[in-house]
Amino acid sequence: MSGASGKAPAQTILCLETRGPGLYEFTDRAAAFARQAGLKAGLLTLFVRHTSCSLLIQENADPDVQRDLAAFFRRLVPHADDPRMDYLVHRAEGPDDMPAHIKAALLPVSLSVPVMDGRLALGTWQGLYLFEHRDRPHRREIVLHLAA
Amino acid sequence: MSGASGKAPAQTILCLETRGPGLYEFTDRAAAFARQAGLKAGLLTLFVRHTSCSLLIQENADPDVQRDLAAFFRRLVPHADDPRMDYLVHRAEGPDDMPAHIKAALLPVSLSVPVMDGRLALGTWQGLYLFEHRDRPHRREIVLHLAA
Amino acid sequence: MSGASGKAPAQTILCLETRGPGLYEFTDRAAAFARQAGLKAGLLTLFVRHTSCSLLIQENADPDVQRDLAAFFRRLVPHADDPRMDYLVHRAEGPDDMPAHIKAALLPVSLSVPVMDGRLALGTWQGLYLFEHRDRPHRREIVLHLAA
Repeated sequence: MSGASGKAPAQTILCLETRGPGLYEFTDRAAAFARQAGLKAGLLTLFVRHTSCSLLIQENADPDVQRDLAAFFRRLVPHADDPRMDYLVHRAEGPDDMPAHIKAALLPVSLSVPVMDGRLALGTWQGLYLFEHRDRPHRREIVLHLAA
Repeated sequence: MSGASGKAPAQTILCLETRGPGLYEFTDRAAAFARQAGLKAGLLTLFVRHTSCSLLIQENADPDVQRDLAAFFRRLVPHADDPRMDYLVHRAEGPDDMPAHIKAALLPVSLSVPVMDGRLALGTWQGLYLFEHRDRPHRREIVLHLAA
Repeated sequence: MSGASGKAPAQTILCLETRGPGLYEFTDRAAAFARQAGLKAGLLTLFVRHTSCSLLIQENADPDVQRDLAAFFRRLVPHADDPRMDYLVHRAEGPDDMPAHIKAALLPVSLSVPVMDGRLALGTWQGLYLFEHRDRPHRREIVLHLAA
C-alpha cells in the first residue's frame, strides 16, 4: 500500500480466490482500507483487472438475492453449449468462456463509493461483491484507489 | 455540504421522492452543486445508496426515450409473478422486489462526470436521472462528490 | 489539454470517428495521455458525451470476442423493425435509434482506471473501447480526466 498522507492517494490490490460462479463479498476489507487511510471526506474507486468477472454492489441481507441474481444472469447469457448461443465464435476456453466476457460487459468493471465522515457512504443494505463468471477457480485482483 | 475551498472535496446528499417506476431527472440540481463549488476543472461522482434503483445518463430531449427505456427493462426483467420468473426465490417484499435488484445490478450505482471550464462536461443530449425500479413511493439518496 | 502540474487534474477530449456498430480500441491513446501527465499514482476517468454509444473494457486478444459481444447485444436489443420491438415509440431517427439508447443504458458511460507506478493498472487482457451502437458514421467525444 502506498501512503495516504497529505494529498497523495492511497492504493492497494485486494486478491480474492474464487471457486466457481457467484458473488464473493469484500465489504469489510474495503471498509478497513478506507478507515485506515484516515480521510474524513474522500472517494474510494474499485477496479477489477479481468474481463471474465465483475464488481457489484448489491443487497447484503438475504443470500437468496445473490442466488437469484446469479440465476438471472445464467438465463440471460447461457453457456455456449446452449442452442440459443450457437452464434458464438470464441469458444477456445470452454462453454463458460465467452458468456463470462458478455456478463463482464453487462456488469461494472469499476465503481466509486464516497467516504463521508471517515466511512464508506454505502446504504444500509449495500455490500461490495466480486461477481465471478467462470466455472473454474480463479485468483482475482481488485485495485482500490482512495483519494481526497 | 462540506466546503469546497482549497483541495478538500465538496460533498452533499440529494434526496429524491419517487412515485413508482421510471426516470426522475436531477441534472439541474447536480449542475448547480458543481457550479457552486467554483472549480474550473474537476470530477463529479454520483453514488446512489440503494439496491433497488439506479443512476442513468440518458437522452433528455424526447420523453418517449425514457418511456421506451422503462418498457425494455420491464420486458427484460418481468415482475416475479410472470411465469418466466418462476425460478426466483427472494419474494418477501412483493413481485417487484427481486426484479428491482436485478435491474439495479444491470444499471449504474455510480457515475462520474468531468467538470471542464467550470461546467459539467455532459453532451448536448445527456441528462442525469434516477431510475426507480420499485412500484411504491420511495425516498432516495444520491451522494454527490466533487473533487479537483 | 490543461496542465497536470502540481495537483491540478489533467483533462483532454479524445475524438473517434466510427463507421458503424462495433468496438473501436483507444487503449494506446489513453495510456499515452496518462504517461504524459507523469503521475506515479492517480486515477484516470473516462466519460463519453453521447447517449447512443458506450465505453467498454474488454478482452484485447481475440477479435472474435468483440464480434461475439456485438452479436449478443444485437440479439438482446434488436433493431426497431424486429417484431419483438414493436412496443417502441421513439422511432424518429430510424430502426437503430432507440435500440442504441437502450444499449447505451446497459453499458458504461463512465469508467475509472487507477494509475499505479506511472501506468494504467489494466489487467493483461484488458483494452479500452468505444462501443458504437449506431449504423451511420459518427464523430464521438471521450473526456479523459486524470487526477492524483
